[in-house]
Amino acid sequence: MRTQVGIIGAGPAGLFLSHLLKQQGIESVVLEARSRAYVEARVRAGVLETGTVEIMERLGLDSRLKREGMVDEGIDMRFRGRTIHINLPELAGKSVMIYGQQEIVKDLIAARIAAGDPLIFEAKVTKLSNIDSESPVIHYQHDGEDKTLECDFIAGCDGFHGVSRPAMPQNVITTYDHTFNFAWLGVLARARPIADMTYTNSDDGFALCSRRSMEVSRLYLQVPFDEKLDNWSDARFWDELHKRMFDYDRSEIAEGEIFQRDVAQLRSFVTEPMQYGRLFLAGDAVHIVPPTGAKGLNLAVADVRVLSRGLTEFYRTGGRGRLDAYSARCLERIWKTVRYSTRMTELLHKFDEHSPFQRNLQLSELEYIAGSRAAQTTIAEQYAGLPFVED
Amino acid sequence: MRTQVGIIGAGPAGLFLSHLLKQQGIESVVLEARSRAYVEARVRAGVLETGTVEIMERLGLDSRLKREGMVDEGIDMRFRGRTIHINLPELAGKSVMIYGQQEIVKDLIAARIAAGDPLIFEAKVTKLSNIDSESPVIHYQHDGEDKTLECDFIAGCDGFHGVSRPAMPQNVITTYDHTFNFAWLGVLARARPIADMTYTNSDDGFALCSRRSMEVSRLYLQVPFDEKLDNWSDARFWDELHKRMFDYDRSEIAEGEIFQRDVAQLRSFVTEPMQYGRLFLAGDAVHIVPPTGAKGLNLAVADVRVLSRGLTEFYRTGGRGRLDAYSARCLERIWKTVRYSTRMTELLHKFDEHSPFQRNLQLSELEYIAGSRAAQTTIAEQYAGLPFVED
Repeated sequence: MRTQVGIIGAGPAGLFLSHLLKQQGIESVVLEARSRAYVEARVRAGVLETGTVEIMERLGLDSRLKREGMVDEGIDMRFRGRTIHINLPELAGKSVMIYGQQEIVKDLIAARIAAGDPLIFEAKVTKLSNIDSESPVIHYQHDGEDKTLECDFIAGCDGFHGVSRPAMPQNVITTYDHTFNFAWLGVLARARPIADMTYTNSDDGFALCSRRSMEVSRLYLQVPFDEKLDNWSDARFWDELHKRMFDYDRSEIAEGEIFQRDVAQLRSFVTEPMQYGRLFLAGDAVHIVPPTGAKGLNLAVADVRVLSRGLTEFYRTGGRGRLDAYSARCLERIWKTVRYSTRMTELLHKFDEHSPFQRNLQLSELEYIAGSRAAQTTIAEQYAGLPFVED
Repeated sequence: MRTQVGIIGAGPAGLFLSHLLKQQGIESVVLEARSRAYVEARVRAGVLETGTVEIMERLGLDSRLKREGMVDEGIDMRFRGRTIHINLPELAGKSVMIYGQQEIVKDLIAARIAAGDPLIFEAKVTKLSNIDSESPVIHYQHDGEDKTLECDFIAGCDGFHGVSRPAMPQNVITTYDHTFNFAWLGVLARARPIADMTYTNSDDGFALCSRRSMEVSRLYLQVPFDEKLDNWSDARFWDELHKRMFDYDRSEIAEGEIFQRDVAQLRSFVTEPMQYGRLFLAGDAVHIVPPTGAKGLNLAVADVRVLSRGLTEFYRTGGRGRLDAYSARCLERIWKTVRYSTRMTELLHKFDEHSPFQRNLQLSELEYIAGSRAAQTTIAEQYAGLPFVED
């Protein structure tokens, strides 16, 4: 098989890229290791920046998002029993949209299949070859057979554990890695959600209450990085959540059936550069942000937006200017976003290793934010999304 | 000897307090361990917040400050060879005044002596007694004799190494301490100063160029905490300063005779509460901020402003409401200022212990600040000075 752009991974990065390329008349094949059902059920973040919503709109894939998505105009940060309300439109001039990542993924998959464009599930990539030639090749297994996909370019959108990043020559890349010694225990519950997404820094640790719909709450608790789900009965989860949210009389947070739960360790990770020869990495394959701030999907979209413009230029003019600048163009915004996600994580979690001085410094930062419109604006403008790279 | 308020220390905290009390008709005696010449020659920070300037004005002691002080409307932060200009009036609605701490100290001492109010130099305090009674006593040595000063209240304004803080019952206080493993090598040089106070974060470490007058520059380099002055010839100092300031052709930073030099380790330190019985601590006796941001003197002034109001209320009405609330009223602003000074230190210095990830995060923070008016405003409003505690 042969195509123009071979895309590895049917997460947001790979799927958005395939649609952006198609809009410019560029062919691609998407190879995904997992099944369609698996990919569509993968629960991730659910906060879309305006720029991400606009891309869905430009792709003409926003009808369900417009119908089911919920505009979020504010976030709350809670500490010492007090709440800081961050009004996004007032401070940042824009808001965000609540719409689960798996819903985006469903929409993008459905559109691709409806158009008859190639998207192969359960295609396990084993090797990339000739990435520094003009005809790189993706080797994969599908239906028990070894197959190859020859292409002009390979887009590695296969996430942190994928094969694309390891296929980069190890002597050209630099890796930046920071692992937190805690995780988020996340649940989905059939329970009336809290009005505003609320982050809390309590003496018992971080918690986050958010919504996925008017009937479904997405709730998180900070837990040790090696925490077992079995340690958390529903009763223990609700007890801890009420306590951390300073909801001592249990009147604020509604309880309901918990129907999904997962534990994810927090990590910040960046690899530079994001490209070598004809291989280009995007999304989680090349950077991981901790979930505080909900930037993962939005950052992946920003990457493939730049990549699709580079590929478009190449196919229109034969020029590699934009493609060669891909990594450099993406990295400044990526680092700012990694910084934001890391600093929000540092601001809102309880760190066992903190001295009493460091703990007081953290709470004093929240005190300062509570009293400063400028500080609230810095949070709002980054939460709502930094501007895309200019053209 | 007997007085209403016994003040230990003739630094900014003690001297300001004595003048503020006098204005309200309250008597005090200031005891200072060192000589007048020593105290007046002690080189410290030189950035006055508007609130500090206003207090000099209200005390009627601002004539020399008005004449010799220089208004600073901006600061610069430099990194990766680029400069972020922070316009204080535009972003914070106010500016700061450049006027050396030792000049303030000279003005306050001269005014006190001119008025014939008691200010005893070379009076070494040895002990405080009866601090939980209504008649606390300061024991001191002067002219080779043991003496006592009986008072209604003791104000401990004798700095970090003074006797006042250790006189607090150790079981009531909590200490927060954070020491950086680097110091500032500071010099005064007869050299045309740079236009705007400029902080730089270079791969070789932090540097700061500021001015004390149109002919005198105050210049700093980050050095190891145990650095010896002998290691720094004038030539080495200038070489290093040009390099860290990205002034490779040596055209920007003017050189001149270096006539004063010192090394000071950076530290953040807070003790809570700031009072016990009839003993009240203020200024460096109870909190130390790293010099990045130049907050030490201004914070001391904010403390004694609150304390003088408490004492005024007591002598007018007999009520202890404000006095009892002194520590709590001061500490929120103190912690915000400690936070600001610590975070500015973290933002602008080179940390040997930083991983490449942490170093990139720090530089990305500067990139973000460079592009965000809100982030610049947070720096400006804190540099120009948070509001005093309201009445």
